[in-house]
Amino acid sequence: MIILGIDPGYAILGYGVIGTEGSKLTAIDCGVIETAAKTPFPDRLERLYEGMRALITKFKPDHAAFEELFFYRNTTTAMQVAAARGVAILAARQAGLALYEYTPMEIKLSVTGDGHADKLQMQQMVKLLLKLSRVPKPDDAADALGIAVCHANMIGPACENYLIK
Amino acid sequence: MIILGIDPGYAILGYGVIGTEGSKLTAIDCGVIETAAKTPFPDRLERLYEGMRALITKFKPDHAAFEELFFYRNTTTAMQVAAARGVAILAARQAGLALYEYTPMEIKLSVTGDGHADKLQMQQMVKLLLKLSRVPKPDDAADALGIAVCHANMIGPACENYLIK
Repeated sequence: MIILGIDPGYAILGYGVIGTEGSKLTAIDCGVIETAAKTPFPDRLERLYEGMRALITKFKPDHAAFEELFFYRNTTTAMQVAAARGVAILAARQAGLALYEYTPMEIKLSVTGDGHADKLQMQQMVKLLLKLSRVPKPDDAADALGIAVCHANMIGPACENYLIK
Repeated sequence: MIILGIDPGYAILGYGVIGTEGSKLTAIDCGVIETAAKTPFPDRLERLYEGMRALITKFKPDHAAFEELFFYRNTTTAMQVAAARGVAILAARQAGLALYEYTPMEIKLSVTGDGHADKLQMQQMVKLLLKLSRVPKPDDAADALGIAVCHANMIGPACENYLIK
């Protein structure tokens, strides 16, 4: 099975693609879709949507796993990220993927065994579990691999609870 | 020129289509795109996106005008509406429309001359300005016509200030 992990963002959206065979996990790719600050909002949304479509066409994932949005103090930023996440979910839905979401704590717990793990611990576990020679850069790409690993660990009847509703 | 006014929403998105010839305004259509509460979030976004595309294909608007999101206390609702607005903007951008947005106060001021007009005053002015036999129902459809009328009043060099950035 191919899993696409998404760390939703407006300026930077992280993605991580992994393959699973039983309990064996393999990193396939990771990276970011970036949108420039000077570009108008509608064009930035279009770039994120087209970027998602290109990823799905290239890697043909079966499932997509998103990090749930946490609360932002800055309402403008929150609205922008919510819109970005919306168009990313739209692209995945249109491609027929099953869509899941996990809170930051669920992701940390699943990947490291500690729901309060820090960024460094998360990155080291992602490196270890996926047998990478180094921690992927930028952080958004490493985070997205962590989201994909979390979902891979959840696969089974229980993961129905994490479908995006 | 054909203007598509959009009152963004997640459960109900209002739309109003008007034609302008100089200062003459004509109502062409109005209505709502609704999404059912029991439907999963990704499918509701897809329905809103497809609904927007169908409107644009049918009426071939030149400009789309959106009401700006105001602050919601309920963060979950705010995130859902922001995502819905994002996919509606995406659909309009992909169709090559010029995209504008106005605050609720700017819309009231432009339509009634009073930035603090109530809903009834707004609806009566929309009915009057568009020579309708009655106030359109539901309210979201009438609101969307008001947004389109607001933009029609703004057309000219000043409306560049209202482009969605």
